[in-house]
Amino acid sequence: MRISELSRRSGVPTATIKFYLREGLVPPGRATSATQAEYDETHLRRLRLVRALISARGLSVSATKEIVGSLGEVEGDTYELLGLVFGVWPGAGGGAEVAPDPDVDALIAELGWDITEFSPARETLTRTLDTLRGLGVPYDWRTLLPYARLAERTAVLDLDQIEGPEDPLEKAERAVLLTYLLEPALLALRRLAQESEAAARYRDQPYG
Amino acid sequence: MRISELSRRSGVPTATIKFYLREGLVPPGRATSATQAEYDETHLRRLRLVRALISARGLSVSATKEIVGSLGEVEGDTYELLGLVFGVWPGAGGGAEVAPDPDVDALIAELGWDITEFSPARETLTRTLDTLRGLGVPYDWRTLLPYARLAERTAVLDLDQIEGPEDPLEKAERAVLLTYLLEPALLALRRLAQESEAAARYRDQPYG
Repeated sequence: MRISELSRRSGVPTATIKFYLREGLVPPGRATSATQAEYDETHLRRLRLVRALISARGLSVSATKEIVGSLGEVEGDTYELLGLVFGVWPGAGGGAEVAPDPDVDALIAELGWDITEFSPARETLTRTLDTLRGLGVPYDWRTLLPYARLAERTAVLDLDQIEGPEDPLEKAERAVLLTYLLEPALLALRRLAQESEAAARYRDQPYG
Repeated sequence: MRISELSRRSGVPTATIKFYLREGLVPPGRATSATQAEYDETHLRRLRLVRALISARGLSVSATKEIVGSLGEVEGDTYELLGLVFGVWPGAGGGAEVAPDPDVDALIAELGWDITEFSPARETLTRTLDTLRGLGVPYDWRTLLPYARLAERTAVLDLDQIEGPEDPLEKAERAVLLTYLLEPALLALRRLAQESEAAARYRDQPYG
C-alpha cells in the first residue's frame, strides 16, 4: 500500500508517519520509484505499536526508539526477542552503574527465577530497597518475596496472552504492547484494590 | 529543633528545606522569634517523605504537593486519610472528562470492590481498554479480572504494612511511601518474572 493508505488505515497523519520513518521507528518501505514506496501489513502493525507507545502510553520518542529498536536486533527466535522486550526498561537506569545487591540476589535465588546477570530491573529493586531503608522503613528481600510471588502469576497471565501469534516478531510486538500499555492499568488496579481494602479495614472504625 | 538540626538529621540542605517550606510541602515550624522557628519529629518525617517522592521516586514538585496536600485536608480519620492517598493519581488524568465505562463498572461490580464513584484510577482502566481495543487486541473487563484478583492480594500486603503506626497521619504517610515508592519495584518484579517465564516457555524451542 502507499503511504496515504497506511495513514488512512492507521489513523496516523502522513506527516507523522514520515517523521517516524526518518527517526527509524518504522522500517522503510520498498521503494517503487524515486519518491514513492510500498508498505505492507508489517508496517501497519509497527505503526500502531509506535503510536500506542507514544500517544497512549506517553513514552518519549527516544524511549520508544529504544524499545522498537530492540525488535530489529534479533529475528526469528522468540526467546531472544522477548528477552529484549522485557530487558528494556526506559528511564529506569540510564546506564548508571549499580553494584550487585545481595538482597536482590537472595530474592531471585529464593524464587528460582531464570534471568540474566545484567537486567536493569535488578537496579530498580536495589534502588527501592535502599530508599525505603534510608527512610527507616524496614525492608529486605523477604518483604518483597510475597510481591514477587504475585508478579510470577501476573507474568503467566501476560505470557498466556502472547501465545496467539505464530510469528516471533508479531509475538514480540504483542509483548511490547501488553507490557507497556498494561503498566498504568496494573497500578490503577492496585490503587482501587487498596481503596477497597482500606474501606474494609478502617471505615466506621472508632478512633481517638 | 532548629532548621540546622532538621537539615542534619534529614540530610536535606537548609536551602532545600526553605524551598519546601515556601512551597507548602512541609508545614511551617512554630515561630520562636522573627527569624527563627522550632521544628519537631513530624516535620522530620514529612521532610523525609517529600524527599523520597521527589528524589527517589522522581515525582515533580507539583505532583508531590498534591499528594502531601491531601494529608493535611483530613485529620484523625484513617479511612478518610487513606482514601485521599489512594485517590490521588498524579499525571494520570489531569482532570480530563471520561464518560463512565460499562466495562470498568462491570469489573468493579464483579469484584465487589468498595470504591467511590469518582476515582481517577477508573479513568486509567478505561483509557487502557480503549487503547488496546483500538489496536485490535481483544480486551474487556473479563481479561482484566485475573489481574484485578492479583491486585487485591497486593493491596492486602500493602495494607498489612501500614498496620504498625497508631497515628492516622503517620499511617497515611507510610501509605504514601509504600504506594509510590513500590510502584517501580512492582513493575520491575513483573519484568523479571516475565523474563523467567519466557525462558521457561521459549528457550531452546525449535523454530522455523
